Amino acid sequence: MHDKSLPGWVYETCPDASVRHRDAARVRQDQLTKPTGALGRLESLAIDLAGLQQRDRPRAAGVPITVFAGDHGIVAQGVSAYPQGVTIAMMANFCAGGAAISVLARELGSPLEIVDAGTLAEAPMRGVVSDKPRRGTRDFSLAPALEPAELAFAFDCGKRAIARAAEGRPDLIILGEMGIGNTSSAAAIAAALLQVTAEAIAGHGTGLDAAGRAHKARVIEAALARHGLAGDVSAERVLRAVGGLEIAAISGAIIAAAQQRVPLLIDGFIVSVAALAAARLNPSCRPYLIFSHRSAEQGHRIVLDALDARPLLDLDLRLGEGSGAALALPLLRLACALHAGMATFAEAAVPDRAG
Amino acid sequence: MHDKSLPGWVYETCPDASVRHRDAARVRQDQLTKPTGALGRLESLAIDLAGLQQRDRPRAAGVPITVFAGDHGIVAQGVSAYPQGVTIAMMANFCAGGAAISVLARELGSPLEIVDAGTLAEAPMRGVVSDKPRRGTRDFSLAPALEPAELAFAFDCGKRAIARAAEGRPDLIILGEMGIGNTSSAAAIAAALLQVTAEAIAGHGTGLDAAGRAHKARVIEAALARHGLAGDVSAERVLRAVGGLEIAAISGAIIAAAQQRVPLLIDGFIVSVAALAAARLNPSCRPYLIFSHRSAEQGHRIVLDALDARPLLDLDLRLGEGSGAALALPLLRLACALHAGMATFAEAAVPDRAG
Repeated sequence: MHDKSLPGWVYETCPDASVRHRDAARVRQDQLTKPTGALGRLESLAIDLAGLQQRDRPRAAGVPITVFAGDHGIVAQGVSAYPQGVTIAMMANFCAGGAAISVLARELGSPLEIVDAGTLAEAPMRGVVSDKPRRGTRDFSLAPALEPAELAFAFDCGKRAIARAAEGRPDLIILGEMGIGNTSSAAAIAAALLQVTAEAIAGHGTGLDAAGRAHKARVIEAALARHGLAGDVSAERVLRAVGGLEIAAISGAIIAAAQQRVPLLIDGFIVSVAALAAARLNPSCRPYLIFSHRSAEQGHRIVLDALDARPLLDLDLRLGEGSGAALALPLLRLACALHAGMATFAEAAVPDRAG
Repeated sequence: MHDKSLPGWVYETCPDASVRHRDAARVRQDQLTKPTGALGRLESLAIDLAGLQQRDRPRAAGVPITVFAGDHGIVAQGVSAYPQGVTIAMMANFCAGGAAISVLARELGSPLEIVDAGTLAEAPMRGVVSDKPRRGTRDFSLAPALEPAELAFAFDCGKRAIARAAEGRPDLIILGEMGIGNTSSAAAIAAALLQVTAEAIAGHGTGLDAAGRAHKARVIEAALARHGLAGDVSAERVLRAVGGLEIAAISGAIIAAAQQRVPLLIDGFIVSVAALAAARLNPSCRPYLIFSHRSAEQGHRIVLDALDARPLLDLDLRLGEGSGAALALPLLRLACALHAGMATFAEAAVPDRAG
C-alpha cells in the first residue's frame, strides 16, 4: 500500500535484467576448468552481474562510494553512546582521509563523495556536497521527523548524487552513511515496515550497554505508538514519521541507480533499512541489490531476512560508512576476473567429468 | 601420542607470537576513529598478525602461493567424479594461466609455484617443480599408502618449498592442492585423527552424487578398519596408512613456515586436514594458521571445529587449489591498510565516546 506522495520518478519501474546475458554467463561458468559449481557464490555473482549489466563479461572495476551524513534530534533522548558533534567531525575526517571508508576507498581506487544530506553543519565544509532541506532531522519522539517536502527533497538529493556518480559510468555503486543517532531512526523504520517490536530490532548502535539499548528500544516503541505506526502503513508515512534525511536520501539513491541499470553493493544495517524502504516503494529495484555483509547490529538479520538477502560476509562489523560494502568489493572483482580469465575445458584440453 | 618417526625438524617448536606487538596493536585499534570493536574480525586479524610478524604495522603485501599436486591410487575404487588424468592436465593449466588459482594469483600479484609432490607424470613438466619420492600415492584400500621414507620425503618437499618461497621475504604464505582422489585421502586422515566415521566426514568431492558419496565412505571405512586406525593412533601412522604425498607435503610446509614466523592463510578441506595433521605433530604451529573459508565439503566443518577455527568466508566454495585462501587475502590486506592508515581520535580531533 502506497500513498505515492513522493516525486513521480520514485515509482518508475527499473529495467529487467537481461535473460540472454544471464544464460550465456551460466553456460560459460559450466565450461570453465573447475568442477561444476565449485566456485559457489562467486559463480552466481558473476552470472547475476552479467544479466544486470547486460554484458558478456561483468565488471566491478569502477565503483564510486557516496556517503550520506545526517544528524538526528532523537539523540536528545539519550539513545547514542557518542556525542552529536561526532557527525560533523567525522565528515571532516572522511574528507581528510583518516576514516575507515577513506582508507578503503583509497585502497580500492574508488572515488569517494561525501554528501551532507541533513547534518547540523551551518557553514559549507570543504570537500562536502551540501544538499539538505534543513539542519538535522527532527526528534521523532516529539514530532514527525520530516515534513512531506523535506522527505521529497531527500529522495531528490539521492537521485542527484547518483547522477553525479553516473558521469563516471560506474560498474557498481556503494552507498554509505554517517549520523549519530541514525540506528534509532533505522530501527524505528524497520520496526514499522516489518511490524516487529523495537525491542526485537533495536541494537547497541555504536556501543550502548544493555541498559542503554533497552532505553533506546523504549524510546522507539513509544514513538511508534505516538505516530500510529501499528498495522499496514505506507513506507512514505513511516519515513515522514521516523525517517532520517540521510536514510531517505539513500533510499532515493538506490531507486535512481537501479533505474539506470547500475547494481548496488549494499552495506550494513542502516543502508539495508534504506533498501527495505526502497524495495517497498519500488519493488523493481530489488534485483539490483547485492548484500555485502551481515552486521553485528541485531536488527540487521531481521531486515536481511525480510529482503530474502544472503550477504557475502559475516565479520561482526558494525561501523557503517559503506565500509562493509567496500570490504566485499574485492570478492566481486575476483568473481569477474575468474569469469573472464579462466580457461574452458576445451581451451585447456582438460578432460571433463567422467560419464 | 607420537612416534616421532618423521625428520627431526618437524618436531621443533615454532616461536611464540610477540605479546608486545600484539598489545601495541590492540591499543592502536582502540584509538582509531571508529566505535571500539566496530571493525569486528578485521581488528583481531590485524592484532594477531602484528604479534606473529613482530611488527607495529602488520602487512599482507607479499603472499606467494604454492600448489602441491599428487595422484592417488584410491581412484581405482571409483571414488572420484573426474578421471585421474585431470591432475596432470590441471598442472599444465595452472602453468598456462587458465586455472582459477592462476587467475587469482595474477589479480593479487602473488607469485605462483606448482610442485609435483607425487603425480603420475613421468617427464618433467615446464613450469612445475618436480619433488617426489614416487609416482602417485598407493591405493590405501589395498596397502599402506606410503612407506616411512616416502612420507619423510614429502615433509622435506614441503620444507623445501617454504625455503624457496621465503627467499622473497613473504608476509604470509598460501598453500593449495590439486589431486584427483585427494578428498578420499583427506577424509580418511581426518576420520582417523578425529575418531569420527567416514560416513560423517566424506563429502561429494568434485561432484559425486549421493550413491557415489556413500560408496566413497564405505571404501574409506573399510580401509580404516584394514589399517587398524581405530583408537588413539599417531598422526605419523595415519599419514603412512592413508595419507597422500601432496597432503603430507602441505603438513610439512605448514610447520616449516610457522617455524620461520611466516603465518599461513589456510584454504579448504584438504589443506585444513593437512593443518590438522601438522597441529597434531607440532601444536606450536597452530597460532600461525589463519583459516580463510568454510567449504561446501561436509567434513570441513568437523575439521575446523576440531582446530577451533572460525574461517573468514563461507561462500559454498569447493575447488581447492588454494582458491579460497586467495579470495580471503584482500580482507587481510584491507585489515592491514585500516590498521596503518586510519586516523586516531586525537589526530582527527573527533570527540570520543561520552562518559
